[in-house]
Amino acid sequence: MSDTIRLAHGFGGRLTQDLLDEVIIPALSGKHEHAVTLDAAVLFDVQPPVVMSTDSFTITPRFFPGGDIGKLALAGTINDVSMMGARPRYFSLGLIIEEGLPLDELRRIMQSIGDLARRTGVQIVTGDTKVVERGVVDGLFINTTGLGTRLFHVGPERIREGDAILISGTIADHGAAILNVREKLGFTQSLESDCAPLWEVVAAAHEAAGEHLHALRDPTRGGLAATLNEFARDTGLQFVLREDALPIRPAVRAFLDVLGLDPLPIANEGKCLLFVAPDRAESTVAAIRRCPEGVNAAIVGRVEKAPRRGRVVLETAIGTRRVIEMPIETGLPRIC
Amino acid sequence: MSDTIRLAHGFGGRLTQDLLDEVIIPALSGKHEHAVTLDAAVLFDVQPPVVMSTDSFTITPRFFPGGDIGKLALAGTINDVSMMGARPRYFSLGLIIEEGLPLDELRRIMQSIGDLARRTGVQIVTGDTKVVERGVVDGLFINTTGLGTRLFHVGPERIREGDAILISGTIADHGAAILNVREKLGFTQSLESDCAPLWEVVAAAHEAAGEHLHALRDPTRGGLAATLNEFARDTGLQFVLREDALPIRPAVRAFLDVLGLDPLPIANEGKCLLFVAPDRAESTVAAIRRCPEGVNAAIVGRVEKAPRRGRVVLETAIGTRRVIEMPIETGLPRIC
Repeated sequence: MSDTIRLAHGFGGRLTQDLLDEVIIPALSGKHEHAVTLDAAVLFDVQPPVVMSTDSFTITPRFFPGGDIGKLALAGTINDVSMMGARPRYFSLGLIIEEGLPLDELRRIMQSIGDLARRTGVQIVTGDTKVVERGVVDGLFINTTGLGTRLFHVGPERIREGDAILISGTIADHGAAILNVREKLGFTQSLESDCAPLWEVVAAAHEAAGEHLHALRDPTRGGLAATLNEFARDTGLQFVLREDALPIRPAVRAFLDVLGLDPLPIANEGKCLLFVAPDRAESTVAAIRRCPEGVNAAIVGRVEKAPRRGRVVLETAIGTRRVIEMPIETGLPRIC
Repeated sequence: MSDTIRLAHGFGGRLTQDLLDEVIIPALSGKHEHAVTLDAAVLFDVQPPVVMSTDSFTITPRFFPGGDIGKLALAGTINDVSMMGARPRYFSLGLIIEEGLPLDELRRIMQSIGDLARRTGVQIVTGDTKVVERGVVDGLFINTTGLGTRLFHVGPERIREGDAILISGTIADHGAAILNVREKLGFTQSLESDCAPLWEVVAAAHEAAGEHLHALRDPTRGGLAATLNEFARDTGLQFVLREDALPIRPAVRAFLDVLGLDPLPIANEGKCLLFVAPDRAESTVAAIRRCPEGVNAAIVGRVEKAPRRGRVVLETAIGTRRVIEMPIETGLPRIC
């Protein structure tokens, strides 16, 4: 087998079969009831309500501190499914590969998808591999579509005045890490993406709070600022964050301070916001903290009646308040 | 709204919302029980066994005689689901758009997806839109992932010696049309892609043949030659095609003759091969011919015991036989 991807790897013949048999399928396989055929899959135990979510990943660079495009592509859709109160189960994987991609890169990326799938109990049941000519795509794009079984109902319409706002860990890690490697800012302290699957955190929170867990959302592109502003618009409520309660790594804070950037609109890839009835907030945080992905969970704010219309407010350590706007429409392209 | 796609259309802010509200969602909406939210979807009436299939589409040019990348992307996955004996139901749509794509092009492509969805009763229930910088992708790539409810069981393991081989219409239309426009061969006769959804054909065949409908496959990339060779390998049987029974448009035959190309390895995008017990072949063809997508259906061959191992044989009009090999690993990149 050659050491880079050739167009013929996408033509459906022997080279395609070799690529599937030698690189893709072995990396993705686990102890599954469904064999990885990467053709159309038949799923016998999907019960409604079924949650379906899709996402394409175009991140550059493909390897970054804390992850790679493969881990991100699987974790990202695992999280989208999880935020609907659904246990992630069956996933499809669509690869669009540029001719000339080193086979070893593809191998590492497939391995990282397979490792995460095995660790989280999700199964890649079907897929598609396209190879396009040099210059037609930058390296590798990945689409993942995930199915899950919805176990409980959450949504912004269930958020109530007085709810506690929780975050499952430190903020702004992903955006800071990508910015640092992409722009070669050479910030030497360790900045790592938080790229991680969140179903375990969600399940722990639900076990602790039950129906008092009202809403969930992972603040990816646009960070907490975008997610909370969306919820403010949809609910007409006021979301108050306490600045000194927001968990943030010192290295991330220092990095963003140097660049003059606010952490609130910076992307996260392994964190979720949770809206919980106030009397369940402490026990829910405690439950989340017992998960490896939730050790830095914290109560970071509360939901209030809005003066006129929904908005997001940051309360500083000295008690002043400022409104956090929806992030303006500039941003980092290809952050996920 | 500007007249081309800008990076900010992918940043998740107001421009993204405008793009969804003004271009994407209206084009895709129909009289659905599920609103098109293009976020994660909750599906209440999906019953197992569920068929799941995914495909990415990178075709160039994006508009071609007989269709466009949108119609192709939806029909292609409708067909993958249909070939499993499943009625196509719920689809996700992942767009990766190059900065600078004319908005009007995107509008036409979304309209063509929406038109086909409404015509086939398929629903786009969730989606994702990424915008990447100029030069990072060529124009527009589309991923579709489809779910269907499996209504009956078909598969190569059910093919029997003596089965009739049926094709739902003329062969090689898609590959010939794309080759003609792509290579600017300037062949003036009308060459049109056959890009079309096949569930109706499949349902009609099943109604006529019942459990005597043994297997189905749409011969896309690699054409009849690739599909039949895969089945020959998987079943160990011999598949004999009668050359004079193969439906082919005169313009396609003339075009391929000029280029010295054999129609058997040329891609189709709206045709399926069907394997049916011999005593049901005539009634099944008659049923397929009553569908708009199946008017040229024909019995084109039969399944025989293989001399040593599975293979594909073409029987010419004068009675000679030649073996049809798996297409060699050169082909047209970005044909779908």
